[in-house]
Amino acid sequence: MTDFFAGISPVTYSPDAPADQLAYRHYNPDEVVAGKRLEDHLRFAVAWWHSFAWPGGDPFGGQTFERPWFGDTMALARLKADVAFEMFEILGQPYYCWHDADIRPEGASFAESNRNFEEIIDYLGEKMQAQGTRLLWGTANLFSHRRFMSGAATNPDPEVFAWSAATVKNCIDATQKLGGENYVLWGGREGYETLLNTDLKRERAQAGRFLQMVVDYKHKIGFEGAILIEPKPQEPTKHQYDYDVGTVYGFLKEFGLEGEVQMNIEQGHAILAGHSFEHELAMASALGLFGSIDMNRNDYQSGWDTDQFPNNVPEVALAYYEVLKAGGFTTGGTNFDAKLRRQSLDPADLIAAHVGAMDVCARGLKAAARMLEDGGLEAARDARYAGWQQNVAQGWLRSATLEDIEAAVAAGEIDPQPRSGRQEVLENYVNRFV
Amino acid sequence: MTDFFAGISPVTYSPDAPADQLAYRHYNPDEVVAGKRLEDHLRFAVAWWHSFAWPGGDPFGGQTFERPWFGDTMALARLKADVAFEMFEILGQPYYCWHDADIRPEGASFAESNRNFEEIIDYLGEKMQAQGTRLLWGTANLFSHRRFMSGAATNPDPEVFAWSAATVKNCIDATQKLGGENYVLWGGREGYETLLNTDLKRERAQAGRFLQMVVDYKHKIGFEGAILIEPKPQEPTKHQYDYDVGTVYGFLKEFGLEGEVQMNIEQGHAILAGHSFEHELAMASALGLFGSIDMNRNDYQSGWDTDQFPNNVPEVALAYYEVLKAGGFTTGGTNFDAKLRRQSLDPADLIAAHVGAMDVCARGLKAAARMLEDGGLEAARDARYAGWQQNVAQGWLRSATLEDIEAAVAAGEIDPQPRSGRQEVLENYVNRFV
Amino acid sequence: MTDFFAGISPVTYSPDAPADQLAYRHYNPDEVVAGKRLEDHLRFAVAWWHSFAWPGGDPFGGQTFERPWFGDTMALARLKADVAFEMFEILGQPYYCWHDADIRPEGASFAESNRNFEEIIDYLGEKMQAQGTRLLWGTANLFSHRRFMSGAATNPDPEVFAWSAATVKNCIDATQKLGGENYVLWGGREGYETLLNTDLKRERAQAGRFLQMVVDYKHKIGFEGAILIEPKPQEPTKHQYDYDVGTVYGFLKEFGLEGEVQMNIEQGHAILAGHSFEHELAMASALGLFGSIDMNRNDYQSGWDTDQFPNNVPEVALAYYEVLKAGGFTTGGTNFDAKLRRQSLDPADLIAAHVGAMDVCARGLKAAARMLEDGGLEAARDARYAGWQQNVAQGWLRSATLEDIEAAVAAGEIDPQPRSGRQEVLENYVNRFV
Amino acid sequence: MTDFFAGISPVTYSPDAPADQLAYRHYNPDEVVAGKRLEDHLRFAVAWWHSFAWPGGDPFGGQTFERPWFGDTMALARLKADVAFEMFEILGQPYYCWHDADIRPEGASFAESNRNFEEIIDYLGEKMQAQGTRLLWGTANLFSHRRFMSGAATNPDPEVFAWSAATVKNCIDATQKLGGENYVLWGGREGYETLLNTDLKRERAQAGRFLQMVVDYKHKIGFEGAILIEPKPQEPTKHQYDYDVGTVYGFLKEFGLEGEVQMNIEQGHAILAGHSFEHELAMASALGLFGSIDMNRNDYQSGWDTDQFPNNVPEVALAYYEVLKAGGFTTGGTNFDAKLRRQSLDPADLIAAHVGAMDVCARGLKAAARMLEDGGLEAARDARYAGWQQNVAQGWLRSATLEDIEAAVAAGEIDPQPRSGRQEVLENYVNRFV
Ligand SMILES: [Co+2]
Ligand SMILES: [Co+2]
Ligand SMILES: [Co+2]
Ligand SMILES: [Co+2]
Ligand SMILES: [Co+2]
Ligand SMILES: [Co+2]
Ligand SMILES: [Co+2]
Ligand SMILES: [Co+2]
Repeated sequence: MTDFFAGISPVTYSPDAPADQLAYRHYNPDEVVAGKRLEDHLRFAVAWWHSFAWPGGDPFGGQTFERPWFGDTMALARLKADVAFEMFEILGQPYYCWHDADIRPEGASFAESNRNFEEIIDYLGEKMQAQGTRLLWGTANLFSHRRFMSGAATNPDPEVFAWSAATVKNCIDATQKLGGENYVLWGGREGYETLLNTDLKRERAQAGRFLQMVVDYKHKIGFEGAILIEPKPQEPTKHQYDYDVGTVYGFLKEFGLEGEVQMNIEQGHAILAGHSFEHELAMASALGLFGSIDMNRNDYQSGWDTDQFPNNVPEVALAYYEVLKAGGFTTGGTNFDAKLRRQSLDPADLIAAHVGAMDVCARGLKAAARMLEDGGLEAARDARYAGWQQNVAQGWLRSATLEDIEAAVAAGEIDPQPRSGRQEVLENYVNRFV
Repeated sequence: MTDFFAGISPVTYSPDAPADQLAYRHYNPDEVVAGKRLEDHLRFAVAWWHSFAWPGGDPFGGQTFERPWFGDTMALARLKADVAFEMFEILGQPYYCWHDADIRPEGASFAESNRNFEEIIDYLGEKMQAQGTRLLWGTANLFSHRRFMSGAATNPDPEVFAWSAATVKNCIDATQKLGGENYVLWGGREGYETLLNTDLKRERAQAGRFLQMVVDYKHKIGFEGAILIEPKPQEPTKHQYDYDVGTVYGFLKEFGLEGEVQMNIEQGHAILAGHSFEHELAMASALGLFGSIDMNRNDYQSGWDTDQFPNNVPEVALAYYEVLKAGGFTTGGTNFDAKLRRQSLDPADLIAAHVGAMDVCARGLKAAARMLEDGGLEAARDARYAGWQQNVAQGWLRSATLEDIEAAVAAGEIDPQPRSGRQEVLENYVNRFV
Repeated sequence: MTDFFAGISPVTYSPDAPADQLAYRHYNPDEVVAGKRLEDHLRFAVAWWHSFAWPGGDPFGGQTFERPWFGDTMALARLKADVAFEMFEILGQPYYCWHDADIRPEGASFAESNRNFEEIIDYLGEKMQAQGTRLLWGTANLFSHRRFMSGAATNPDPEVFAWSAATVKNCIDATQKLGGENYVLWGGREGYETLLNTDLKRERAQAGRFLQMVVDYKHKIGFEGAILIEPKPQEPTKHQYDYDVGTVYGFLKEFGLEGEVQMNIEQGHAILAGHSFEHELAMASALGLFGSIDMNRNDYQSGWDTDQFPNNVPEVALAYYEVLKAGGFTTGGTNFDAKLRRQSLDPADLIAAHVGAMDVCARGLKAAARMLEDGGLEAARDARYAGWQQNVAQGWLRSATLEDIEAAVAAGEIDPQPRSGRQEVLENYVNRFV
Repeated sequence: MTDFFAGISPVTYSPDAPADQLAYRHYNPDEVVAGKRLEDHLRFAVAWWHSFAWPGGDPFGGQTFERPWFGDTMALARLKADVAFEMFEILGQPYYCWHDADIRPEGASFAESNRNFEEIIDYLGEKMQAQGTRLLWGTANLFSHRRFMSGAATNPDPEVFAWSAATVKNCIDATQKLGGENYVLWGGREGYETLLNTDLKRERAQAGRFLQMVVDYKHKIGFEGAILIEPKPQEPTKHQYDYDVGTVYGFLKEFGLEGEVQMNIEQGHAILAGHSFEHELAMASALGLFGSIDMNRNDYQSGWDTDQFPNNVPEVALAYYEVLKAGGFTTGGTNFDAKLRRQSLDPADLIAAHVGAMDVCARGLKAAARMLEDGGLEAARDARYAGWQQNVAQGWLRSATLEDIEAAVAAGEIDPQPRSGRQEVLENYVNRFV
């Protein structure tokens, strides 16, 4: 037992807790909503990197956090794990996630890094066993080390491709070993800084080949989780190949992988790509790609990935509405790929940020469930498209030709009359639930 | 002969013309660059809508232009055509483009609109015959009339789908009749204002079906031009399904149309989608979709489609570099989907804007051709990826598995060493040509 | 009595109204919050232009609304006024606002336009008298007509400056006559499309001189309302001189007008300028410029002024928190400078949009009042700056020199220790109220 | 003599140098343009931080550069200085700039840091003496160390205010000692992450007081250089008080410092604030605040400060056009606050980046000078505003009232006729020079 969170008790559902007490005021894991416990709906996960490995730097300043586990030894890696699981105990969330680089010190060689990794994976396994926290997903950090500066799978240097492939193999193995329910690929450096030095077509082909190997390996070892791609349009690169859901869909189709891979969608990346979060979720659902979410927001005013904890219930409700319409999570869940602001130095800030976010999500999901149960939005939508149920319209979708249709229109049989889209009425409707 | 351009003589290549004289100072149609006349490289087209139909309005103010042909009669439509062809005579550019709504008055019924349209098509045909100007592409305006306010192919009302299909049929017929080299679809309203009232999946399916009918019809009538989609991410809608090249590629693959349709790429739409123009061109080329370009720029400072004439030679050069690398235009060309600023009231402004733009393009293309001939960029690119020529690297791309590669890396055989990306050196290189 | 709103009854506070009934579920005008009736806190105003004069166009399409009063006659202007006051009767909001161009048809001359204007002002006066609705502010439309295309006060042509001055005089007169509580200047065209043709310094001086004349005239006629500038960074222009609150403050100081003019701040304009709404409100308050608000939001995803009705309670609450901290409105109020989406064709949409917005504002203001009463944010803020209460710190603010302070620091007396900024904790706090 | 730049000879003006040779192809320091040597016009400066202290990190990855001088000892600081002056010898640029933190290792106490600083200042002084490179400006880094995480002058903790004041005193002393021609303040942390914990008014007052002390100290010690503020809207903070030129002007007026302080304007910060570079320069000139420039560009596609070397001649030409119109630099100059891309690892990249940038600037300035000499833009501008020379218009600017003017307009004496703004013609004009 470390003393990092000294004085902080496990957080419980306590809607009437005094103002200054850490408590879940809305998240009751056992509350049944739309036939399922809230915990099973939301499937919250803590992200190891932001919570335990990020030092608080930004492009204009360095470390602000002073964590006793910062450093590059195995002993410190274990201390970090001890504190992490103490936090999981306090929060009671069911899942967590890691990159390899978050949990183990880099070694002097690939082999040494891997030995460190395997040792810490065993250590995590014991803790998971003891405590019951599960692994939502594992992933490989193929972007922080300088060897990845020009990409991982898409690097001009095939040796980096190889290093990346080897790393991913070991990370999938570890994820499987720990019973992880998904394996995530975020291609932070899979893009370019300048087209002038880039062979975009070749790099996309490298990425396609890499992903094929990942899928093949998953099947070979019988990993039962989902393979997820997390799209992001830019940052750190000027352009990233996994721009958004629509782009990744095209990429998967190009390489014949659309049945094998799903999406991990982050609010912050959605808005960097010029979309709303709910748009990306609806797209993924429409294309059969919905997997999991990173429920952290970007600041609309800042042009980079701020990875903040969610705090706007109406926005979160619209996101969960799409999640519920897509059938809810199967292997996926709600990961907080969110970091404290770098001025939030105190251990209590780390707890409070997660507690507040979980409450915001609980409010959002409950509102979404009520809206879906009420059915008002879906009824309005059905009414709007009702004309397509008519025989003639069905025929247009099935087998008509431009000439057939032109003949009917030219004959004056068709004279469309605009009907209100009722946006404000629907927005008012939503506001009755959030 | 109207008097709209009274006093303006045909513009000729005259590099040493006095400062106040309208002249091509860089665009010599007959200059041979990389084995082809400049005119045949650039294939300039004037856009009818911005040049002759746009009244000069913006969201906060109405008409500023006072053109003698504004109005809704056939006589005025003919006057507009007369002036247009007088401008083509002055500019000497080889191509032009239209929407149906630009060239004919809307009638009281579909049939009447179509009679107007056919009559004016014949009128244009005579003028083209007489003057030699050709049609780069035709397209249907399925966004301005209120009937399209909720979409055309993707409208919740099937009658609008039908109206749109009928309109496109007639526009393709007219394009074919006039010998047009392409037919373009820009889905300005094929998107949504709010997800709350939208069935995104259904609307995408409608769009897929619509496009299939267009392709079928093209084959049926033996139209030999290309079918082009012009992507745009948003505006007028909050989200448009044809977001960018990558998204449209996924859409084409979803509906099995990737061999049938190519892209018309606009600089302004590229940057609205968070890309550079050259990125979208490189993507289209990599995906086998490159078709044509709308060479009009957006203001980087304004968050909407400003559709300005190009004026930055270094940027234009990078775009044509991608065009040349893609093999140059076949059916496509350089369309100016560009409008005067609404304060540019004078007939001379309309001429000057085109002349300046054509000179900028000529400078850009010539610089691009010199760079490609010099080969410096391509040599640097080849050197950067040279490692992939090695046998072992080729094997990784062909048939290796994650385990194979991991074994090699773990054995210490692989230790990638970062190499400079040399971005600034390459930028300096480009600056030697522009 | 027109039949435009046939079947729509006056909307009343009815928190438990059935789902499909138009009702205020949160806005009870008579509810006393922080010592004042809600109606007197919020001081809602309807904007004539968006609600009654906007035809539903956007840059890619024309009119969608078919209002019986569209047209250019005095009879139609009166019909428009009749419908407007019927809407005010239905909504029961205390205020409205107009531009001259919204309420009267443009005449063939200035004098004729003014006769139309005066006649309609009298007509409005009678209706206000009869019905009790008051004028929050009047303003002149100096941006829609083509004569203003290059600016109003800042036009290169002094005749436009004169026309604008004359127009503003008459609009102030009319505002005074109707008992308007403020007069607003929004300089939609007071900026430039290109610096190449612009003398920025001269244009700023013209604007300063113009504003001085307005202030002088206000005093001369004893107009007791406030003169308000509404900042906006761009659109329709590339750059507008009234960029944001900070810029306007500098402008007022430059021309010695900082005691005479206050701000009308719009959410949409704040975010176009790269700020949050609450930031602009806090700036205005800090600089002694807070006046009134336009409570309409922009879509974060769209790079232009969408002028939508507010729908996000947490955001609105933060704005009203700043309003309340600034002492609440005196002459100002909550104007909805908001337009229906162009697909929202039905009369009921117009009512529903306002009702929903008023409820959102009521929820926001009540949450803000509770937060202010609870005092948690202010207590945390005071604690954060508490060090500045110490004598030595007060001395630094009063009279120390760099040398004095350096001596103390160099002597080792000072060693600042970072303290948590507690952002997430404060965000959680806010979420307990919204 | 270190071997860092081994094999790289001093770069000279050599317009016909072979393609692979580092040479100034456009920058001839001795070329006389508009009556002044190019070197004296451009006054190039190298920035110590980006060139020698930045490790190549970004928010998703760490150090990529492996410089032999990285580390925290005085010996390494001296080595860094040796290499820096070797680069100055190679480039031959007349100036450089530093932050305190760039040149000396942080000590365990303020006093120790200062001893390190003074020692290195002496070392630099000797090198400057020997080599002739001069100091364009010095500045204090009040943003990287964790003590500044919540601001420097605007920190809630007065001890940080004091630490900052002491630091600035010593940096001004050092700047004066080295004959620096300006002292710069960039308030990277003078803003906020969240308004929830911020007293904006109080923080602005702290900043005003701080600046007053700086100005007082300058006068006291007889520092003859200019005090410059470098505006930036955001990043690292969500909002920075020195948002842009217009905002800083208001700030200076608020605290009565507008005669004492000028601007250091950076292209990248201008566009982050929603302006063009030339706009900010024109504003500064109009407000009497023009001082110096940071000639580094941001990528239009990336929403953060990319600090790249300039590479677009037409854009740079427009900026220097404003500089020349403002009378050119007095104490100011052209600083490259630009960093290599983090993949540009080689020493030669550092040289090439500067050489290319200096050539781009030379081309831009020469084009600007030719445009100014030709006079076409200024003649067009004068013609556009010529109406203001008339007596009646002069009267309106001097002494008329709204009533006077209204009487004239109502009498029908005034009927403004729109005239073309000729934007495209002017853009074509510019393109004849760039
Ligand atoms: Co992120
Ligand atoms: Co993420
Ligand atoms: Co466009
Ligand atoms: Co276009
Ligand atoms: Co607005
Ligand atoms: Co407004
Ligand atoms: Co910068
Ligand atoms: Co700078």
